[in-house]
Amino acid sequence: MGPAPKAGTVTPVTEASVHPSKSLRIPGFHAIVPAGGAGTRLWPLSRQTRPKFLLDLTGSGRSLLQQTWDRLVPLTGPEGITVVTGQAHAAAVAGQLPELDRAGLLAEPSPRDSAAAICLAAAVIGRRHPEAVVGSFAADHVIRDAAAFHAAVAEAAAVAAEGDIVTLGIQPDHPATSFGYIRMGERLHVAGAPSAHRVERFVEKPDADTAGKYLAEGGYRWNAGMFVARTDVLLAELERSRPSLHAGLAELAAAWDTAERDAVLHAVWPGLDKVAIDYAIAEPAADAGRVAVVPAALDWDDVGDWASLAALLPSTTGMRVLGDDQHLLIRDAEGVAVPESGRLIAVLGLEDVVVVDTPDALLVTTRRRAQDVKSLVDALRTLNRDELL
Amino acid sequence: MGPAPKAGTVTPVTEASVHPSKSLRIPGFHAIVPAGGAGTRLWPLSRQTRPKFLLDLTGSGRSLLQQTWDRLVPLTGPEGITVVTGQAHAAAVAGQLPELDRAGLLAEPSPRDSAAAICLAAAVIGRRHPEAVVGSFAADHVIRDAAAFHAAVAEAAAVAAEGDIVTLGIQPDHPATSFGYIRMGERLHVAGAPSAHRVERFVEKPDADTAGKYLAEGGYRWNAGMFVARTDVLLAELERSRPSLHAGLAELAAAWDTAERDAVLHAVWPGLDKVAIDYAIAEPAADAGRVAVVPAALDWDDVGDWASLAALLPSTTGMRVLGDDQHLLIRDAEGVAVPESGRLIAVLGLEDVVVVDTPDALLVTTRRRAQDVKSLVDALRTLNRDELL
Repeated sequence: MGPAPKAGTVTPVTEASVHPSKSLRIPGFHAIVPAGGAGTRLWPLSRQTRPKFLLDLTGSGRSLLQQTWDRLVPLTGPEGITVVTGQAHAAAVAGQLPELDRAGLLAEPSPRDSAAAICLAAAVIGRRHPEAVVGSFAADHVIRDAAAFHAAVAEAAAVAAEGDIVTLGIQPDHPATSFGYIRMGERLHVAGAPSAHRVERFVEKPDADTAGKYLAEGGYRWNAGMFVARTDVLLAELERSRPSLHAGLAELAAAWDTAERDAVLHAVWPGLDKVAIDYAIAEPAADAGRVAVVPAALDWDDVGDWASLAALLPSTTGMRVLGDDQHLLIRDAEGVAVPESGRLIAVLGLEDVVVVDTPDALLVTTRRRAQDVKSLVDALRTLNRDELL
Repeated sequence: MGPAPKAGTVTPVTEASVHPSKSLRIPGFHAIVPAGGAGTRLWPLSRQTRPKFLLDLTGSGRSLLQQTWDRLVPLTGPEGITVVTGQAHAAAVAGQLPELDRAGLLAEPSPRDSAAAICLAAAVIGRRHPEAVVGSFAADHVIRDAAAFHAAVAEAAAVAAEGDIVTLGIQPDHPATSFGYIRMGERLHVAGAPSAHRVERFVEKPDADTAGKYLAEGGYRWNAGMFVARTDVLLAELERSRPSLHAGLAELAAAWDTAERDAVLHAVWPGLDKVAIDYAIAEPAADAGRVAVVPAALDWDDVGDWASLAALLPSTTGMRVLGDDQHLLIRDAEGVAVPESGRLIAVLGLEDVVVVDTPDALLVTTRRRAQDVKSLVDALRTLNRDELL
């Protein structure tokens, strides 16, 4: 915002005042959206051919990818968003995001984990916009407090411009064991980023006792995998920790906007290290004191399994429902129902039940066992039931 | 069996020794099979258009009706079986029982309860075979000890020939609350019926405490609704207790094998009393000391609900299964699964779960709540979801 208009002067009509959301724009900021991962814990709704990020999992009418877009576009504009996805999903991503620039859709020939995906995007953006600050935000998470998200990213971008790698640290509201944690260190003093702290270290997913200790102790945040940095800073960190991955991606980025792209992709991509960005960049950089954190209460969820999703859904007659509750007949039952096939689902006399009804597969389980749904998908793979994966 | 052949004599080859099952024939005995009742507690497998008796509920490859036929035909021959069913199901019954005489299929214009159905058949049989002893056996029960059944019916027919109404009394193996009980009185002394007793009284379905008391006390049998009597004895009892019903059925029976049948059915049927045979005949006859019981251990079940059916099914990976277990993926779960739609059913981490998967409706409940499935069907009726009934 500019200074308040003085009394008696005529305030010119600016674009920002006509389109107030334009005032959220962060100059020079680009968003990277890695859109990968089937989300096997949300089987049978989520499949290899219908991955989690393409699904409307909250009943909002928008897929998680589209909600991610909606959240980012006020910060970057449509031309400031780059989506990295598998070639198999590129057409679906383009179909869901009609405003996405053709140049902003990077299709991977095969999955090479998050460091390759995000740093490829960072390298391509860095060649197109040498001064860019990039932020990476998963395509399949839910953030219900968009205003808090916008404010936190603005702070993170301000810190990143100074040369740090910056992560958003989610305020824990329970001792979760399915997320990694961030141990916060001293407060930083960066203009425009009053809440930023140094990251002391990243810690792996804890057991329940340890998680409880973290909450009691304070100073811990959930690691939601959101990173903001200048492209040159990010790539320098990668070069230090994974020089061959860095070299491959640099070669690819140089060819990306040329006729050589496919040839170089074909030659380079299959040999790239498969490594998560947390291991390749975040942890070594944190150990070297080069990572900052902006704490944030975003009402964030990674929608990791049916139990996690349940908490995001409206409740009808005792059941949380994703879909049309006209298809439900519930008596003395509590849990989650997903009437996806259009058949009637009658549930009688069960506490904590998960019923996911799709045209070719039905899941009946409990929220308590939600993490084990992955093992069912593994079993189907072993049984060569590929049509159900 | 006749006397053992004396040493040195030549035993003539009889039909019975060539076809041993022929020896089960009870001369003058006719079976009545009332095939009605949708079996709403077995929804969504059982429907108005696919009633319980037409279904193969035990995975044997034969419907309950066909199994009833298979059990009776050694006693009566094909020409000795009369099935009473609704007009809507007459074609399906004839299709399932190709050996059933056309004259042995009585179609009711509308349901008028069991007294009308069974006594219509008895009256029609009585006019065709004035000396007949009839036995009435539900089309939708399971009896796994056919030999014990055959022996018990033979005893019952012997007692019935003397002028009693005879019921089979099932040996209880648990304090069931879903069946009525028979209180046995003194032993009778009828040739060919060594185990027959007088019936002291019929008692309504008891509560659990009372049922426990009955078992501890002894002398009680389950009332499985199987009655054997001479047609004249049965109809005389009806005439005493329900004279107008008796008169209507007599008029109908007189017209049955004439060109007047449809006209008389149309005129008489809608006005007949709707009453169960227990109230119209068995209880008043017992109070008058005219009912006998042949106790029997038949491994009988009325397959009244999913809990009852579960006990009859084979177990696969912890679940009782009715259908093809190729459609199941079970982990740490126990209960009943019916994969009727052909979709994969995955069940994870539930004890006592009932999953019945049909093409247009899915039921998820527990055996403990099996009796309440009827309330779901009632709710669907209230919601005008007739296509699912």
